[in-house]
Amino acid sequence: MSNYPMVPGHEVVGEVVEVGSGVTKFTAGDIVGVGCIVGCCGNCQPCKSEIEQYCNKKIWSYNDVYTDGKPTQGGFADAMVVNQNFVVKIPEGMAAEQAAPLLCAGVTVYSPLNHFGLKKSGLRGGILGLGGVGHMGVKIAKAMGHHVTVISSSMKKKEEALDHLGADDYLVSSDSTRMQELVDSLDYIIDTIPVFHPLVPYLSLLKVDGKLILMGVINTPLEFITPLVMLGRKSITGSFVGSMKETEEMLEFCKEKGITSTIEVVKMDYINTALERLEKNDVRYRFVVDVAGSKLDH
Amino acid sequence: MSNYPMVPGHEVVGEVVEVGSGVTKFTAGDIVGVGCIVGCCGNCQPCKSEIEQYCNKKIWSYNDVYTDGKPTQGGFADAMVVNQNFVVKIPEGMAAEQAAPLLCAGVTVYSPLNHFGLKKSGLRGGILGLGGVGHMGVKIAKAMGHHVTVISSSMKKKEEALDHLGADDYLVSSDSTRMQELVDSLDYIIDTIPVFHPLVPYLSLLKVDGKLILMGVINTPLEFITPLVMLGRKSITGSFVGSMKETEEMLEFCKEKGITSTIEVVKMDYINTALERLEKNDVRYRFVVDVAGSKLDH
Repeated sequence: MSNYPMVPGHEVVGEVVEVGSGVTKFTAGDIVGVGCIVGCCGNCQPCKSEIEQYCNKKIWSYNDVYTDGKPTQGGFADAMVVNQNFVVKIPEGMAAEQAAPLLCAGVTVYSPLNHFGLKKSGLRGGILGLGGVGHMGVKIAKAMGHHVTVISSSMKKKEEALDHLGADDYLVSSDSTRMQELVDSLDYIIDTIPVFHPLVPYLSLLKVDGKLILMGVINTPLEFITPLVMLGRKSITGSFVGSMKETEEMLEFCKEKGITSTIEVVKMDYINTALERLEKNDVRYRFVVDVAGSKLDH
Repeated sequence: MSNYPMVPGHEVVGEVVEVGSGVTKFTAGDIVGVGCIVGCCGNCQPCKSEIEQYCNKKIWSYNDVYTDGKPTQGGFADAMVVNQNFVVKIPEGMAAEQAAPLLCAGVTVYSPLNHFGLKKSGLRGGILGLGGVGHMGVKIAKAMGHHVTVISSSMKKKEEALDHLGADDYLVSSDSTRMQELVDSLDYIIDTIPVFHPLVPYLSLLKVDGKLILMGVINTPLEFITPLVMLGRKSITGSFVGSMKETEEMLEFCKEKGITSTIEVVKMDYINTALERLEKNDVRYRFVVDVAGSKLDH
């Protein structure tokens, strides 16, 4: 596509070093964040409704083409240039490395809970899969006052879920006795599994009007049967990151509730090892790369 | 199960001939209707929320077991006994034979449009499949002020849909040019197809936040891919008839808007022929059996 190198990095926190003449929201010295998206059309219905993440012409933070025809380059760099509309202020007192994973993983779970009317206490939620998004799901749902059940394929993450993340219950999907006990018990399930899996057992766990919220991009068709949906007016839905407005709200929510991400901060020279460990799912739950502290030589 | 004969009939209109001592809602001479359900537990969350159609202990109007242990018997009879909570008044001026199909087919489409926030003018809806439920879907959606597209597998019902039912557009699902033109154009689709069919083409027709509302009981798994749902925050959902409260609302709505069902009134001695024609889909769109006018000999 071009002679430019591809620079990834989409949960970016940094300091504003310079602003353009039209910039009103930020000044040099502000600590700010950038998420998945750095552009949108501004004219379509989603853009007009401030849900620009659903614009068909949205521009990804890296490996996409910007309005000037050049490739977009992400945050694993000394600096990046971003339109102010796609930049959020990091609340005072929130550490940069803590804020970073919120800009994608955090808002990815906050947005559907907020949008689908689930940001209220007393609900019972399920988090299916405990990775980068799932762990934020537990923390954010708990902070909303929910009873949270982590659902997993094995016992491996039980202690982690209950003792470290603060989940209320842990359910192994192959435990048919407990799966049966919990039929019709959950208001929603956030399903973070990124590969093919059956939906019927999880639809069964939902109450009337319950929502199965899919977060995993899976191109193999998933399956369900209609009576299970119809006879409980259940919904199979999904959502994609969140709007800039929701990102701001979510950061304030996390600050107010004292939510921290569980992360491992690494330097630039650890990247190859980090990628190898990611392939083995060997991370709790996000690597954050300290670019500024890595003293890169150019 | 018992020595009683099975008496079907679940879209029932008749005159109250006698009321029990505790009955406050009706008096003899009232013209009333009964739908799919004649009982529920009264204590579960759906019952307490006045969506008793989702009660796990709901009792069907026929071929079910009533609280007294006896089989329930439907409306193809001289008389039936029903708890007043499952009886609705037919609005004055609405003909009995017109009201009957509204009690199931009518409320089946009215309820999800009402519940999912779609009872407002200016929306664009699709009706997939033009049978008993689909034809009511076109009429009710038009009366709500929607632009209605009937989606069918062939051209056969085009004239019927546009000229007789008042749909605005007719889309043949195999016409890939028009299917492509209409991508991202509909707020909802009411999917009445009762057999396996692909969902991906119809999910593609939905706008951001669009809803695919399933009405067909299909035990063969249906399939979809998650990006199509996530990247437009679309929902696959469904619903089952409607509550008594919605049935009353729907009858008032139909009376106010002058909605009539398209029906063929037959006598009891035509039943076997009617069933044969039903098997061949040879009915526009519901047979209504005039029991009182059939002079049955017992």
